[in-house]
Amino acid sequence: MTKEPAGCRSTCPIANSLDLLGDRWTLLIVRDLMFRDMSAYGQFLEAGEGISTNILADRLNRLVAQGVVARRTHPTDRKRITYLLTEKGIDLLPVLLELIRWATSHMPNVRVPPEFLDRLENHRAELMAETRRHLLAKLAPP
Amino acid sequence: MTKEPAGCRSTCPIANSLDLLGDRWTLLIVRDLMFRDMSAYGQFLEAGEGISTNILADRLNRLVAQGVVARRTHPTDRKRITYLLTEKGIDLLPVLLELIRWATSHMPNVRVPPEFLDRLENHRAELMAETRRHLLAKLAPP
Repeated sequence: MTKEPAGCRSTCPIANSLDLLGDRWTLLIVRDLMFRDMSAYGQFLEAGEGISTNILADRLNRLVAQGVVARRTHPTDRKRITYLLTEKGIDLLPVLLELIRWATSHMPNVRVPPEFLDRLENHRAELMAETRRHLLAKLAPP
Repeated sequence: MTKEPAGCRSTCPIANSLDLLGDRWTLLIVRDLMFRDMSAYGQFLEAGEGISTNILADRLNRLVAQGVVARRTHPTDRKRITYLLTEKGIDLLPVLLELIRWATSHMPNVRVPPEFLDRLENHRAELMAETRRHLLAKLAPP
């Protein structure tokens, strides 16, 4: 067996993705931004899975540093900070959709609204286009 | 803002997927089984990313317990143990392909063989069918 070069982790697409996304929380924050119209720190904190404040702050900072999430300050109230997906973040949509499909097929406890599942299986291009449009509209300058 | 029910993590497909797959290593083991024809503990250990023996053993046990990976013992040499993807594991193929596409588009250090990328972008159904066939053939009883 040939040992792979030591630099493999730096060029393998899956390893690189997992360096950023491979933990229990990061893709849940992306999910909340993508499908649940959340944008504020407090919303992510109370999204139901019990993320701790320091992990949430760390993951948001990493997502911002990696260009997946943009941090916006309200023009008149500088304490109002919101987060939204960049184009790089929006491009994670197919990854999340495939995770949803896989879990729906293989994990008995998972529940997905039937109308969403129908669109995912039968009108996927339309579902993707509409979600992208919705997210890109938020990203556009006001 | 409505707080989601406490049981959310148990029914959300993304949260459920991440309970199993959301770490730096699990999907790398799936990658090695799916694209690199690896099947032995020692191969995963030397796959280049420096996974430790105890993490590898733990992740393989979890994947076997969750039905993503099957553990086979050689019929005459019981010390020869191999691992292979079950159908549930093979069904992760689209998730990995989308991660590869995303990383290839957005991460500058990533390198993917151009012929693979061409198949992924232009002959995806064929690439998926062929990969599935290859993996299902391993799964068939000898």
